[in-house]
Amino acid sequence: MTPHPRLLFRTQALNPLLRRSPRSSPSHPPLCRPRRRLACASAGGAVTPQQPTFGVEDAVVGFVTGKRKATEVAHAVWRSIIRKGDTVVDATCGNGNDTLALLKMVADERGQGRVYGIDIQDSAIESTSCFLNMAVDDDRERELVKLFPVCHSRMEDIVPKDSPVRLVAFNLGYLPGGDKTVITVPRTTELALQAASRLLNSGGLISVLVYIGHPGGRDELNVVESFASSLPINTWVSCKLQMLNRPIAPVLILLNKK
Amino acid sequence: MTPHPRLLFRTQALNPLLRRSPRSSPSHPPLCRPRRRLACASAGGAVTPQQPTFGVEDAVVGFVTGKRKATEVAHAVWRSIIRKGDTVVDATCGNGNDTLALLKMVADERGQGRVYGIDIQDSAIESTSCFLNMAVDDDRERELVKLFPVCHSRMEDIVPKDSPVRLVAFNLGYLPGGDKTVITVPRTTELALQAASRLLNSGGLISVLVYIGHPGGRDELNVVESFASSLPINTWVSCKLQMLNRPIAPVLILLNKK
Repeated sequence: MTPHPRLLFRTQALNPLLRRSPRSSPSHPPLCRPRRRLACASAGGAVTPQQPTFGVEDAVVGFVTGKRKATEVAHAVWRSIIRKGDTVVDATCGNGNDTLALLKMVADERGQGRVYGIDIQDSAIESTSCFLNMAVDDDRERELVKLFPVCHSRMEDIVPKDSPVRLVAFNLGYLPGGDKTVITVPRTTELALQAASRLLNSGGLISVLVYIGHPGGRDELNVVESFASSLPINTWVSCKLQMLNRPIAPVLILLNKK
Repeated sequence: MTPHPRLLFRTQALNPLLRRSPRSSPSHPPLCRPRRRLACASAGGAVTPQQPTFGVEDAVVGFVTGKRKATEVAHAVWRSIIRKGDTVVDATCGNGNDTLALLKMVADERGQGRVYGIDIQDSAIESTSCFLNMAVDDDRERELVKLFPVCHSRMEDIVPKDSPVRLVAFNLGYLPGGDKTVITVPRTTELALQAASRLLNSGGLISVLVYIGHPGGRDELNVVESFASSLPINTWVSCKLQMLNRPIAPVLILLNKK
């Protein structure tokens, strides 16, 4: 199955520099390691069905009692923050599950709302595109997603300056069930968090789910925690939710810009 | 105003050993430092009005956006776990706010439900008793609270063996706005957590709010985190919620027994 052409429209229209892999650009040293290599529907991979949605109460009490995952808490909090018509960024598209969840939160009847989906790997962008084609019947709704195969540290090159961003979502590390050697790395994650903090509108949220059960995972968590801890308390609320007796369980860090 | 005699009934009936301060008992070495010295309504202190209640969504999203405190998240989660008629333990009564909140969660029309309230300081027990007398009009409801001036590490001496406990609440450290030199200490807190883990029924919750903005506060947090991390994953879910850019903000640790 060919990716829906409209989903890739903005990618096609990008400055050629952005289309290039950082590793192939002499003027832009390698900042990212490719993160995910996913089976795309077009290559015979399975499309994950859309996850059921939970309210914050279900998600948080479920998390506390071991019945819900941190990602479900994240999605429930996003739903409480995001309004129809908002602009949001999925900084790590991966297989597109978060991209789709965000699309459903921002899409409104008037064709407003926008999801900027980013991933350093072409294959992840293709997978996300295929996934959205399979999961979203409405062409106009699907057009609200703009996908870019660039490093997440460069999100400011993508999101228009006049677009107030309500949420930037990160899903760091390896893809659960995927190749644990294909990961995000601290240096670009730190740059991406800085970019997100500049892009975010007042009242918005940076959501970072950090997978740590792989080599380098704790280093990346340290970078995210250090960044979160450094945010000034007069303009930011930084909080962390984690399991204590599951040392490699993902850690959820939420950064709210006042 | 004299404390309601029925609230102190169980205290009066206690084994004399339990009535004695650990420091005055040669057979029971000092395990606790007295924690709180509070103004009691009978001594002219103000009674704090009952806090408004929030659902988990309001509390958690409010916490993430800096509008709600960790204690409000704790109360909201308690309300999702506790059922009318349950037996619960307030391991650190202090000024009685948590005791009252727990009473409202367990009290049912049939006079069932029970709150065992514990504090090492006689003055805290008196304050809690006064506070409940002021805040609870219904004598039968008030009788559901049993107060004990003992160290929280000895809660198993108080709660009847045949009473399945749904929740044990700890509020560790100094009382915000109170004397920061009057604190709980790691050694007895660890013993109390062990006791709570034995008392707790399947499906129940140990809720620990750790205040850390005082000397020794971080040591106590380390003990609680170490205990929480050591709980076996097949029978416990241990999670932590904390602020990252407010280093002395209280930390909420929730331990669910599967």
